[in-house]
Amino acid sequence: MVYCLYLSFKTEKMLSLNPKDIPTAKLHSYLLSAVAPRPIALASTIDTDGNPNLSPFSFFNVFSANPPILIFSPARRVRDNTTKHTLENVQQVKEVVINIVSYNMVQQMSLSSTEYPKGVNEFEKAGFTMLASDKIKPFRVAESPVQFECKVNDIISLGNKGGAGNLILCEVVKLHIHASVLDENLAIDQKELDVVARAGGSFYTRAKDSFFEIPKPISTLGIGIDTIPLEIKNSTVLTGNDLGLLGNVEKLPTKEVVNKFGQENPNIICLDSIKKHKFAKSFLEKGDVLSAWKVLLLK
Amino acid sequence: MVYCLYLSFKTEKMLSLNPKDIPTAKLHSYLLSAVAPRPIALASTIDTDGNPNLSPFSFFNVFSANPPILIFSPARRVRDNTTKHTLENVQQVKEVVINIVSYNMVQQMSLSSTEYPKGVNEFEKAGFTMLASDKIKPFRVAESPVQFECKVNDIISLGNKGGAGNLILCEVVKLHIHASVLDENLAIDQKELDVVARAGGSFYTRAKDSFFEIPKPISTLGIGIDTIPLEIKNSTVLTGNDLGLLGNVEKLPTKEVVNKFGQENPNIICLDSIKKHKFAKSFLEKGDVLSAWKVLLLK
Repeated sequence: MVYCLYLSFKTEKMLSLNPKDIPTAKLHSYLLSAVAPRPIALASTIDTDGNPNLSPFSFFNVFSANPPILIFSPARRVRDNTTKHTLENVQQVKEVVINIVSYNMVQQMSLSSTEYPKGVNEFEKAGFTMLASDKIKPFRVAESPVQFECKVNDIISLGNKGGAGNLILCEVVKLHIHASVLDENLAIDQKELDVVARAGGSFYTRAKDSFFEIPKPISTLGIGIDTIPLEIKNSTVLTGNDLGLLGNVEKLPTKEVVNKFGQENPNIICLDSIKKHKFAKSFLEKGDVLSAWKVLLLK
Repeated sequence: MVYCLYLSFKTEKMLSLNPKDIPTAKLHSYLLSAVAPRPIALASTIDTDGNPNLSPFSFFNVFSANPPILIFSPARRVRDNTTKHTLENVQQVKEVVINIVSYNMVQQMSLSSTEYPKGVNEFEKAGFTMLASDKIKPFRVAESPVQFECKVNDIISLGNKGGAGNLILCEVVKLHIHASVLDENLAIDQKELDVVARAGGSFYTRAKDSFFEIPKPISTLGIGIDTIPLEIKNSTVLTGNDLGLLGNVEKLPTKEVVNKFGQENPNIICLDSIKKHKFAKSFLEKGDVLSAWKVLLLK
């Protein structure tokens, strides 16, 4: 296997690879580390004999709200190109319950990913409670805080080699949410929900430990970083995130507003540009973009 | 709008909904809060005139390694059923760069989601550096730590109403990884990568602040929670996560091993079952499942 490390953007080294030149297992590993964290579908299916199966998948996301479509992919194994029982089951019975995984059930979820022989009920092995669905035959995981009963609209094979995905297009026909994760407006309290997600290697994330908020960009269109004066844009103090905040204002404060601010804070005018930028940054850290702009525009 | 709250599993209240009975915006909100955190594709496209466009999407994931397929969905807007420039562009020029978003570029990424008029270059508005791709026409985001050059294999419309998704099936034809996020084995160091992901409302997550590890289940097949003695399974001390760990062993320690442990730790035998379970739990918290089992099996 040959890797070509070469100089690129701003003399920073980059590893540039043609997927066809590297083994699938290596490429798989890059994809799983880079496209992360991935939400987890704990998928409950049955075969034509009614045997339940339960298995987690992180090639999963929501893709549409109307119709409500969730997609997950039980891929062909990279190791030996075999397929998973979940895929065989949805080919037979086109229904699936997608259960959301909270932190307090993550070890049981992991245990359910064990490759037990066909016919072994992973609900039992993983100690989950089977709960009858309202509209479909596969069972829900009672312990899961959100359960989506789905009809399988389509199964799309992405290839026939080891590592090839199989898209299972699922339309939600009923959803169930534990009252314990709902707030007083019947919206989901995401901290109470306490979901886990998958990253590369053996890494998982617990979302609530790393939440931060960014309000949607203003709908009146931000001025953009391109219109920020060069002296500010090229600051050694202000980061890309700082500039992103500064670019998301509808317009700059007027000269009058800036001058008034200067009269109220005469000491700022005497600061050199580095100190001024640091002072502006302290306002950005508090979310006060307008004051940051006043400091930066003060001459 | 009528919600039916009714008693279900173990007398816990659940909110059970038929998607057709609630407004799309409400359903959208449930889906976005529950299916989370979602990875982010910062998608770079061009139109037939070569005008660049850049926009982030969290209806996104990897779905296959061989062929390497990433899928994202620029959905029809719930608000007014209009479509996004990204969708129009990939219909014209079937190529896209999917750029991974690290924490230090998250405010610029957010700014690039502003709905600037057609023809406005979001690279400039968001202050990102355009970097020529090797195999396709759309530009890469130089600041992004991992850049996937992709051919669009297929575009699948999931509906024609507001909120309907459009699956863009992207095959990776070249990938670029900043050397700064690679370890000595040329694998991605996920803490260095420092990705952000999307949850519901205005919530984002910063993965590296919430990583934890779970080794893959043993390949020799765990005994499963169903075989754990009832007295342990019904413990008021041990949680589902504890049981998940206990079920993931190939076999229980033998009587001889347990007895030897008892001779070495004679005080444990005298503990009541709650204290014994607490002591076992302390071993599980250290990842020492074998010692936990020895404590639990000691009579």
